[in-house]
Amino acid sequence: MSPHTKYDTISEIAKRRGFFWPSFEIYGGMSGFVTYGDLGAKLRRNIEALWKEHFVRKQGFLEIDDPLINPERVFQASGHLDNFKEYTSQCTGCGKGFRVDHLIEEKTGMENVEAMGGDAIKRLLVEHRVRCPECGGELREPTLILTMFKTEIGATGGETGYLRPETAQAMFLNYKRGYQHAREKLPFALVQASKVARNEISPRQGMLRLREFTIMELELFFDPEKPACPWFGDVRDTVIKLFTEEMEAEGAKEPLEITIGEAVENGLILTEWQGYFMGVGHRFITALGMPPEKQRFRAHLPNERAHYSAQTYDHEVLFETWGWIEISGCAYRTDYDLRSHMEASGTDMTVLREDGTRFIPHVVEPSYGLSRLFLSVLEATYERKNKRNTFHLPRMLAPYQVAVFPLVTKDGLPEKAQQVRDHLIEKGFWVVYDEAGSIGRRYARADEIGVPLAVAVDYETRDKDILTIRDRDSWEQVSLSLQDLAEMLEGYYKGEKDFRDLGTKVIRD
Amino acid sequence: MSPHTKYDTISEIAKRRGFFWPSFEIYGGMSGFVTYGDLGAKLRRNIEALWKEHFVRKQGFLEIDDPLINPERVFQASGHLDNFKEYTSQCTGCGKGFRVDHLIEEKTGMENVEAMGGDAIKRLLVEHRVRCPECGGELREPTLILTMFKTEIGATGGETGYLRPETAQAMFLNYKRGYQHAREKLPFALVQASKVARNEISPRQGMLRLREFTIMELELFFDPEKPACPWFGDVRDTVIKLFTEEMEAEGAKEPLEITIGEAVENGLILTEWQGYFMGVGHRFITALGMPPEKQRFRAHLPNERAHYSAQTYDHEVLFETWGWIEISGCAYRTDYDLRSHMEASGTDMTVLREDGTRFIPHVVEPSYGLSRLFLSVLEATYERKNKRNTFHLPRMLAPYQVAVFPLVTKDGLPEKAQQVRDHLIEKGFWVVYDEAGSIGRRYARADEIGVPLAVAVDYETRDKDILTIRDRDSWEQVSLSLQDLAEMLEGYYKGEKDFRDLGTKVIRD
Repeated sequence: MSPHTKYDTISEIAKRRGFFWPSFEIYGGMSGFVTYGDLGAKLRRNIEALWKEHFVRKQGFLEIDDPLINPERVFQASGHLDNFKEYTSQCTGCGKGFRVDHLIEEKTGMENVEAMGGDAIKRLLVEHRVRCPECGGELREPTLILTMFKTEIGATGGETGYLRPETAQAMFLNYKRGYQHAREKLPFALVQASKVARNEISPRQGMLRLREFTIMELELFFDPEKPACPWFGDVRDTVIKLFTEEMEAEGAKEPLEITIGEAVENGLILTEWQGYFMGVGHRFITALGMPPEKQRFRAHLPNERAHYSAQTYDHEVLFETWGWIEISGCAYRTDYDLRSHMEASGTDMTVLREDGTRFIPHVVEPSYGLSRLFLSVLEATYERKNKRNTFHLPRMLAPYQVAVFPLVTKDGLPEKAQQVRDHLIEKGFWVVYDEAGSIGRRYARADEIGVPLAVAVDYETRDKDILTIRDRDSWEQVSLSLQDLAEMLEGYYKGEKDFRDLGTKVIRD
Repeated sequence: MSPHTKYDTISEIAKRRGFFWPSFEIYGGMSGFVTYGDLGAKLRRNIEALWKEHFVRKQGFLEIDDPLINPERVFQASGHLDNFKEYTSQCTGCGKGFRVDHLIEEKTGMENVEAMGGDAIKRLLVEHRVRCPECGGELREPTLILTMFKTEIGATGGETGYLRPETAQAMFLNYKRGYQHAREKLPFALVQASKVARNEISPRQGMLRLREFTIMELELFFDPEKPACPWFGDVRDTVIKLFTEEMEAEGAKEPLEITIGEAVENGLILTEWQGYFMGVGHRFITALGMPPEKQRFRAHLPNERAHYSAQTYDHEVLFETWGWIEISGCAYRTDYDLRSHMEASGTDMTVLREDGTRFIPHVVEPSYGLSRLFLSVLEATYERKNKRNTFHLPRMLAPYQVAVFPLVTKDGLPEKAQQVRDHLIEKGFWVVYDEAGSIGRRYARADEIGVPLAVAVDYETRDKDILTIRDRDSWEQVSLSLQDLAEMLEGYYKGEKDFRDLGTKVIRD
């Protein structure tokens, strides 16, 4: 990393303006936790809403919201109690614990050391003489440590519980209810956007590795004998960049460019449902502002895959500071989870086919980490030009939709501008009002938080109800009547109108 | 409770259709946890959005999203580590722990035993010979038990952490950032709608006492020498039902009916900001469907108040099954919290007045529990008539906005109906489609989940694009052209049109 990276720049703006900052600042902080401010909370919500537009509303999939705290038996059945572990080493000097695969990666520049397994990790630690990154002390032999947060449910004489490290189990636990609410028809999906927590050993990568975050996850249940996805035609011709398992194993440098239709036909993607969700995901990430050339899909190698997965493709995007980063995984979980919970709970999870045979539904899961999407949006839309910062946020993601400024703070213009602000608030818009400093400074402040449109109130507004709107991206201005303002903005935010449709172009002399 | 209460009825529908049900059902359940299904998740989101309309967007208050897991020092400073405790007794027989004040209340019918203090609780336990509700065994002498979930942050050699039992501390921890983002001007507010967890000893009241839930909380920071609320005029004339501290102490049976303006003038409500938020809350709860006659405000007695509060009013609503239930509290927290964190962290929380004096801002806090609001909506809008269940959900809360039905499943009507569905989905509506059973049954199914409008597709639709819309509440029908449908529905959901404005009344012969 260079001394001042793009991520540093974005983080500085994020703190100063209110997107995000490290949590518990006044108590010296605590790594792995982040606080979202006003702009961040709104941007997150808008990303989540856009995810629902792509993955939930159109398909009519079923939402669910299940607790973060789960009793131990859930994770016994799911396999997490045995598998959600990392190789960890304690320093003989300072006593701190560290995740060994990450230390090896930092020291050697190797990638994906976790996938090499315990013996390799232990060997590499010794071979490369990795020492404590805090005090330089010697590290103990690594052991596998469970990385879920543990607690006691019931303040006295209670039961062991854990905070879930993913939301998927909720969909399996409640699968029978979901099937009932889907009127006992396959395929259907349960989706959830909710909090998870992972007790990372020593997170040192800011927003990239959080101990508490939000996952947006979808579990699609289908009959493996009827694996067709009814919407597959929507994505068949979408071209994606793919590293298949074979290419990964061979260490290929360049991805395959291929349509999703071909990738499924050739067996590179195992099911139509994975292909469908990879295509929808591609469209979703593009809508967040990340262009197709900065997106690719990378298959997990068998020893890298989670214990439940038959095939997983990570969706990666390119960051200037870190290179390619996983923002999503699309896994074919087969019937692993429902079968495990069926065995552990004794609840029948099978479905009856018309021919009288019974089966456990198979599952495909696309899963997104909200904080990485959030970072992707800031990364993709940030621009520094003429010493000014602008986030070119897609209009449906902008925390505030309109800024209202009086040209000057006299002659009744602030009063008129406040009327305009109140009118737009009444009409349902998220509005910022600013009268401090020159109008140029105010435009710059609005650009820095990604407000797409700014309305200036001048003497013509006061006398004739004629306003000027400025476009954040082109700095062009159009004029229109106050009477038309709300309807025009509505058309703009629905995506039915472009900026130039909003009024008459203003020619500056 | 009668053997089959209104709550039982609502719970049965909630499970069957997908509003909510007890969590971890397939593993025998775990009290204090609830799962929201598709309808519940959507209804919750819509309630939260409506709360933001009343408490956030119009005022331009600042949102925030802070972690659920906090290090111990936060709760040391806030006083929770010393105060967030309940008198608990363990059974000498079965070993289970119970919250003693609740056991006494159940046995004696007394109310608010917690507020009587430890000595009274210990005495009442003995006097009334309260025994274990599970096995009838003898109970040990009660002790104070901390009711926060405890965990270890960092899977090895970490630090003690707790899940926060309220979200308010987040606003105090991040107050300095908020002040910066509010451009260093008072008053301003930080608001958060987020998860909290309370390690209840023995929750046995279903949705009323959850171990994990969502709180929607607002902390308003102001200068105690400038206590005026700029929007107080909006609520001055609102009439509310009030039990003041004095009336509570005297055991008054009937509330005072008084305008908020008078209550503040007479010192019954200590600050304009409390009055303002109580008035906005009154309007918000009315918008959820709960009429003013089923709302009242009740002051906490000094020994009932939380350790930080100078005055607290609970907002209560009337449930058929349980009587008056607290759904919100509005507390005047003075400068207690910022002062505590200033002392514990050494961070300066003071603000400079123009006259050169320094002060710590005072805080007023309106706080809502989302799950109780959720229950209030179901309670207030449920109707059973002619053996049919209807939730008369306010239109902005309905999980699904439109149902689309083909009149019959032949002659091209399903295909036409699917086109209508796709058109409405394209236009941004939440749509259910149903073609199973008689049209009467389908209307009944839609009424039971509170869909405000149902569109029937018949031969006239197929041949002339004329549709019929049915109103859930009046069962009236109007007809209109497919071309106008989306725009009409938009006007209806913005509240600009009533049902009868949507088309021409259909006269049935």
